[in-house]
Amino acid sequence: MDFRMTEEQELLLESLREIMARDCTEEYMKECNEKGESPKKFIQALSENGFGMLGVPEEYGGTPVDTMTLMLVAEEITKNGGPHFVFGQALSIADMLEFGSEEQIADTMREVQQGNVAFVLGFTEPQAGSDSSAIAATHTRKNGKIYINGHKTFMSNALTAPYMLCMTRNSEEVGDADKRNAFSMWWVPMNAPGIKVERLKKIGWHMMDTCEVYLENVEVEEKDLVGVEGNGFMQVLINFEVERLLMAASVLGYAECAFEDAARYANQRVQFGKTIGSQQLIQEKLTYMKIKIENMKNMVYKCAWEIDNGLPVQISSALSKLYCAQSANEVIDDALQIMGGIGYTTDCRISRLWVDARVFRIGGGTDEVMIHAAGRAILKQYK
Amino acid sequence: MDFRMTEEQELLLESLREIMARDCTEEYMKECNEKGESPKKFIQALSENGFGMLGVPEEYGGTPVDTMTLMLVAEEITKNGGPHFVFGQALSIADMLEFGSEEQIADTMREVQQGNVAFVLGFTEPQAGSDSSAIAATHTRKNGKIYINGHKTFMSNALTAPYMLCMTRNSEEVGDADKRNAFSMWWVPMNAPGIKVERLKKIGWHMMDTCEVYLENVEVEEKDLVGVEGNGFMQVLINFEVERLLMAASVLGYAECAFEDAARYANQRVQFGKTIGSQQLIQEKLTYMKIKIENMKNMVYKCAWEIDNGLPVQISSALSKLYCAQSANEVIDDALQIMGGIGYTTDCRISRLWVDARVFRIGGGTDEVMIHAAGRAILKQYK
Amino acid sequence: MDFRMTEEQELLLESLREIMARDCTEEYMKECNEKGESPKKFIQALSENGFGMLGVPEEYGGTPVDTMTLMLVAEEITKNGGPHFVFGQALSIADMLEFGSEEQIADTMREVQQGNVAFVLGFTEPQAGSDSSAIAATHTRKNGKIYINGHKTFMSNALTAPYMLCMTRNSEEVGDADKRNAFSMWWVPMNAPGIKVERLKKIGWHMMDTCEVYLENVEVEEKDLVGVEGNGFMQVLINFEVERLLMAASVLGYAECAFEDAARYANQRVQFGKTIGSQQLIQEKLTYMKIKIENMKNMVYKCAWEIDNGLPVQISSALSKLYCAQSANEVIDDALQIMGGIGYTTDCRISRLWVDARVFRIGGGTDEVMIHAAGRAILKQYK
Amino acid sequence: MDFRMTEEQELLLESLREIMARDCTEEYMKECNEKGESPKKFIQALSENGFGMLGVPEEYGGTPVDTMTLMLVAEEITKNGGPHFVFGQALSIADMLEFGSEEQIADTMREVQQGNVAFVLGFTEPQAGSDSSAIAATHTRKNGKIYINGHKTFMSNALTAPYMLCMTRNSEEVGDADKRNAFSMWWVPMNAPGIKVERLKKIGWHMMDTCEVYLENVEVEEKDLVGVEGNGFMQVLINFEVERLLMAASVLGYAECAFEDAARYANQRVQFGKTIGSQQLIQEKLTYMKIKIENMKNMVYKCAWEIDNGLPVQISSALSKLYCAQSANEVIDDALQIMGGIGYTTDCRISRLWVDARVFRIGGGTDEVMIHAAGRAILKQYK
Repeated sequence: MDFRMTEEQELLLESLREIMARDCTEEYMKECNEKGESPKKFIQALSENGFGMLGVPEEYGGTPVDTMTLMLVAEEITKNGGPHFVFGQALSIADMLEFGSEEQIADTMREVQQGNVAFVLGFTEPQAGSDSSAIAATHTRKNGKIYINGHKTFMSNALTAPYMLCMTRNSEEVGDADKRNAFSMWWVPMNAPGIKVERLKKIGWHMMDTCEVYLENVEVEEKDLVGVEGNGFMQVLINFEVERLLMAASVLGYAECAFEDAARYANQRVQFGKTIGSQQLIQEKLTYMKIKIENMKNMVYKCAWEIDNGLPVQISSALSKLYCAQSANEVIDDALQIMGGIGYTTDCRISRLWVDARVFRIGGGTDEVMIHAAGRAILKQYK
Repeated sequence: MDFRMTEEQELLLESLREIMARDCTEEYMKECNEKGESPKKFIQALSENGFGMLGVPEEYGGTPVDTMTLMLVAEEITKNGGPHFVFGQALSIADMLEFGSEEQIADTMREVQQGNVAFVLGFTEPQAGSDSSAIAATHTRKNGKIYINGHKTFMSNALTAPYMLCMTRNSEEVGDADKRNAFSMWWVPMNAPGIKVERLKKIGWHMMDTCEVYLENVEVEEKDLVGVEGNGFMQVLINFEVERLLMAASVLGYAECAFEDAARYANQRVQFGKTIGSQQLIQEKLTYMKIKIENMKNMVYKCAWEIDNGLPVQISSALSKLYCAQSANEVIDDALQIMGGIGYTTDCRISRLWVDARVFRIGGGTDEVMIHAAGRAILKQYK
Repeated sequence: MDFRMTEEQELLLESLREIMARDCTEEYMKECNEKGESPKKFIQALSENGFGMLGVPEEYGGTPVDTMTLMLVAEEITKNGGPHFVFGQALSIADMLEFGSEEQIADTMREVQQGNVAFVLGFTEPQAGSDSSAIAATHTRKNGKIYINGHKTFMSNALTAPYMLCMTRNSEEVGDADKRNAFSMWWVPMNAPGIKVERLKKIGWHMMDTCEVYLENVEVEEKDLVGVEGNGFMQVLINFEVERLLMAASVLGYAECAFEDAARYANQRVQFGKTIGSQQLIQEKLTYMKIKIENMKNMVYKCAWEIDNGLPVQISSALSKLYCAQSANEVIDDALQIMGGIGYTTDCRISRLWVDARVFRIGGGTDEVMIHAAGRAILKQYK
Repeated sequence: MDFRMTEEQELLLESLREIMARDCTEEYMKECNEKGESPKKFIQALSENGFGMLGVPEEYGGTPVDTMTLMLVAEEITKNGGPHFVFGQALSIADMLEFGSEEQIADTMREVQQGNVAFVLGFTEPQAGSDSSAIAATHTRKNGKIYINGHKTFMSNALTAPYMLCMTRNSEEVGDADKRNAFSMWWVPMNAPGIKVERLKKIGWHMMDTCEVYLENVEVEEKDLVGVEGNGFMQVLINFEVERLLMAASVLGYAECAFEDAARYANQRVQFGKTIGSQQLIQEKLTYMKIKIENMKNMVYKCAWEIDNGLPVQISSALSKLYCAQSANEVIDDALQIMGGIGYTTDCRISRLWVDARVFRIGGGTDEVMIHAAGRAILKQYK
């Protein structure tokens, strides 16, 4: 076994830290967060330095890297106080590159090359959260035209992305013998007539908009189908394990960021004539925080290594997502506790991490969905 | 033993619920929270219906009630979605009524009778959080005048309250043989020259302002001393056990509010063809949430009963504060998890409770201070 | 509300403590435990002082007391280092007194009056643990006689009790439309031909035998039926809520016993030049142990009060059993940790409590069964 | 990074499993445990197959392997139901090989080559547990002779090992300016006049004796000094990090053993008409058990890799010991819960693992000592 990064990976992270020291200062983050704006300057800097195209196939002008490297970069961004969502385009566009038409891929790459989010992932609906099979949005063919109707919710980037990858069911199909074969994906321009977008008010993740999207008789054409009709669901499933791991890596970075801030503070803050770090209750917190961080790192790296070596990760990606989301929240909560009152104000970035990290236990499959997925798969191994 | 409320207590809570149904709707709460404003309409309604003077001695026009009743009211307010800080004036002014001069008491009661917060509690400083003995603000006598200088932080209501009860040390005293005898309290008008107030940006508790207060050569007179010079610290300690219990009761109410919302949602929300409440993972959450709520209720009521019966509560008030603050946060966190994505938006009040409840583990003595206080006292009992 | 014991209750516990100081010394407990023998001397003393008949109706020579008093006595026995199973006869014989024939009741009372366990509770089978409806033992009528066949397991006191209350299903009945109506109870002498008893080897509960009981063509008569044929299951359900509470009270006492030993030890044990109690890590443990004990006490007392006041306790008895079994195990585990190596030897009674308490999370309905029962009932309240 | 074992390691483990399938059956383990005897047959088999000399330098006839391999073997033994203490001789004799005289080394190797434990580690005393500096045993020079007096406790293998490595302080030295320089180690034959051994009764670890050892005027000679006088403490510290890791690896194996048994049982045990594994509450347990096992494995392997690569492991060895001891106990406790009543009997090996694993949180440095050690070291990194 070997627990070392490669020299290339170390250099890449070093260069990333340099970019962040310049274009992702805490001052800038705080400002973006307060205004509810995307950190365009940082995204631009990432893009200019090639990070936006990391993991994208060479044929599209990208720099292919292994999963391990992608995870290390994702972790490093949040570890240094950056927002998680600025990275990982390579993964979210993987479906498009595999199933999209030439035109759709061109649309996508045009945006990605500039560091933009190309499309909104149009799956979730008010009644279809963990249960994707409850998707109710429809496409209807009528007089040679195709109309999409539906109500999508928790749509990230709906205010800025130019397209939506919209999942629908055929309105004419009756019954639901095999629900999973009932879905199709469409390439829908967000400025199409009939689309209404409303921003949701959240308690965190202020730098990224999350919206309700209403689609009323939105007209698309046959060429806007993505992949094969009825295969929508299957097409999505292809990359979801890597996406779970990406969430794990990002939230791990948040935890490391909070941990370091809290450890430094514990060494400086004096109460009752000595640093609070000299109190066992604080030492205990830091010890368990450190254990959790080590566990998260090992888990993410091992799962990335498994992916890169073609090993199955159905269980390990679910466990990584579950453990990292929960543990990172615990670590950040402890960090806030160590900071005390100041940790509850926006003067201290832990307050932002604390609110933002909470979503990782819900989005991308809740804790409960992870338990459901992993639990049954584990049992199968001992039959 | 008897675990029943009195009929009077039940009627009081019934009347409170009626007021809240009218003047403390969730719509109104949401609006106040968004605007960062105090819920004046609700405070007014409480005041008009006598809740503001509950627990205040008769000689000041109040309605004396026992501690149990005060706690039941505090719990009921947050249980129904109201903000915790609108109640408990009787406790916070107890020090003033005991040590204040006639004039100071008159100043205080004038405000309280109108439902207003009379004064800012001026203890905490950047270097004096859990450790009050580190207070650095000073009063200096010079040419027959008295000048206060210092920097207070986490000052609740500093933008609205007309006075501050400001703790200082004598600038001329040397050494710190017994620090606790070094402090004095002053009655300072917040509009006095030399006072500068800056609102802190917090992630929650938006309905109540929290501020930095800078005092530069603020002039007071001998008559503005509250109680006895050098006794400031002792005067404060008199009511802190009841105040801890009040925090426990309030945060318990928040937990009950979140629990009920989540339980109702679990009965309604359908995923995978059945209510999520029919899943064991959700049933398990609700079971442990319920256990915690029962424990919190029992703990708060028993401690209130002890106070009303003249029993010592040094340990039980600390345990109540510690357990309730931690458990309520856990309950609310579970509630948010049950709600899923919607629980993270401001459309759902659990998101507000989740952010607001976090402070209860810090303010009024951190978890760690409670452990420190209770732990040593428990050990003494087994010597 | 009122959290005080009555004077009668206090006197009763005082007298119990005196008996225990004499006839239930730790030396004696240790000896019985090592030998795997029942503490006859202590049982005798309880019997002679009327504790054996506490809660038994007057018509049977007993002393009726309320549930609260029964729980207080159960708690006090284990709190002082005694074994839980020596008390609670009144509850376990309640079914018999309600459904038994005159002769069966006479058999029962003859034993109980002497402090003996009258009968083995013959429900559990290898395939019927939590799921009583899987009971496979049968009774078969043939040539005017009745034969019982089956294999019962985890039979407490099977080596000493003279009777078994044996649950069977009618071997001739087909189908299982309503399984719960399929069971009957029989009064079977343990010395009947065809009964074979084998003691199980357990890691704890050494003072009470637990056995496998094999019944092969054990002959009984119609008069040996207990209650109504087919009603066996229903007859048992009547008292199970009180029995859950009794388990909660007993395990609470174990926790208090361990807590007190550990707290005293923390005050005496010196390492690194000071008592270990002066270390925050130990203070923290004791603080949370104390919180759990307070919670358990409140929960048990409140549930007892509910029973005595005719209130429903379906939820609260399940929550009490669940919380007390889990928390007591945590408290005792912490106590062992505080004692260190010595706590792992039989020189220290915590080692016995640690092993013995573990069963409370399994017997009388596992943690998981409690969650299942409480969870669904809680949800119903919020429909 | 690379998470693969080498082929050599895999072959070694394969061969170990074969030995265990033959000479370490559960039947045999159960028998040894019941009798309180060492599993001599298995130890003999390990010895004959070279496992006893694994990690011992070639010059002593051993087979040097890296730390990783040692940990993999330690884990595999307990994972397959074997007792942890049969392996790791190479580590425990490392001190001797470094500091012992030729004669002492010869004494040691004579035993080790036959699979025996060569010596008792004579440090712990009733007043010197975590705090080694409180050792009170003395050596006194008088009339050209040296006499050892003292009382050692928790002495493993004192009934069988032929020697004790006995730590003493010089009885003539006054003061304790630097306590750590006050200790010396002596090579004492256990059959020397003046030595009395008494076996302690424990609740577990029955296959290995643990004793009190009283030394009264035990005569030794100058040649029996091990290493340098006054350096005793320092000589011991050299290998303690690897020993912590060894404990972590062993207890991890116990957890894996329990996990696998429980997972298989969950697939077989039917209640309420379906396997208990189909219940979410059981799936949830297995999911978190699996997470903990993965974390433990990663932690142990990474720390072993660090040692093999000359990296500092002060923090990571303490974290490994702490996390593995706690998590393994949790995993085994969950496993016992899944097994239900049967898990509490000696018919099921989980009952033995449950009792045995508990010691790992106390011996070799308690949880609290680990927190103390790691906590302060972590803080230093963020100064």
